[in-house]
Amino acid sequence: MPHLERHLFVCTNRRDPENPKGSCAAKGSEAVRDAFKRELHERGLKGRIRANAAGCLDQCERGVTCVVYPEQVWYGHVTVDDVVEIVESHLVGGKPVERLVLRDDEK
Amino acid sequence: MPHLERHLFVCTNRRDPENPKGSCAAKGSEAVRDAFKRELHERGLKGRIRANAAGCLDQCERGVTCVVYPEQVWYGHVTVDDVVEIVESHLVGGKPVERLVLRDDEK
Repeated sequence: MPHLERHLFVCTNRRDPENPKGSCAAKGSEAVRDAFKRELHERGLKGRIRANAAGCLDQCERGVTCVVYPEQVWYGHVTVDDVVEIVESHLVGGKPVERLVLRDDEK
Repeated sequence: MPHLERHLFVCTNRRDPENPKGSCAAKGSEAVRDAFKRELHERGLKGRIRANAAGCLDQCERGVTCVVYPEQVWYGHVTVDDVVEIVESHLVGGKPVERLVLRDDEK
């Protein structure tokens, strides 16, 4: 079967603007997804590390939300400006970006 | 951070109908995603096992494609009729449904 070293999913769910939970798409997650894809492409990581859009990851208030597998590290409040750091430190280097990692006490 | 025992992603990418690669959405993946969500909900598995839509998983010819983390098992040719078996055997029981698992030689 295919084998990826790491697979990142970015929530691109969009809710009604009046929904009090907010939504990742309303916070710019499609641009975050595009930035991850572009960064991975430019580094020649196709087939090793992949970024995909995902439906609702159930962390709406903490969005933009991402999750990285296989280690299941959850990120919140991710912006386009964080993408290079997450790619370099975590997706390539294996070291999560701690300041953006969601903790249980944020649930 | 949140912790899921298993997280399944169903490709719901849709390509132009004339694209020779085909696409998972054109093969009914949105109904597959809905069936997984319904089955997990009915079994009371919210917070333990999750199903989400995903963008293109790059296995278009083998669609409907799904991937299950943390073990990164890839499935191809998934239909609504396979959903209960994948939930019971793999997502709950930990035993992948071998007849649907994508192999390297199918790439």
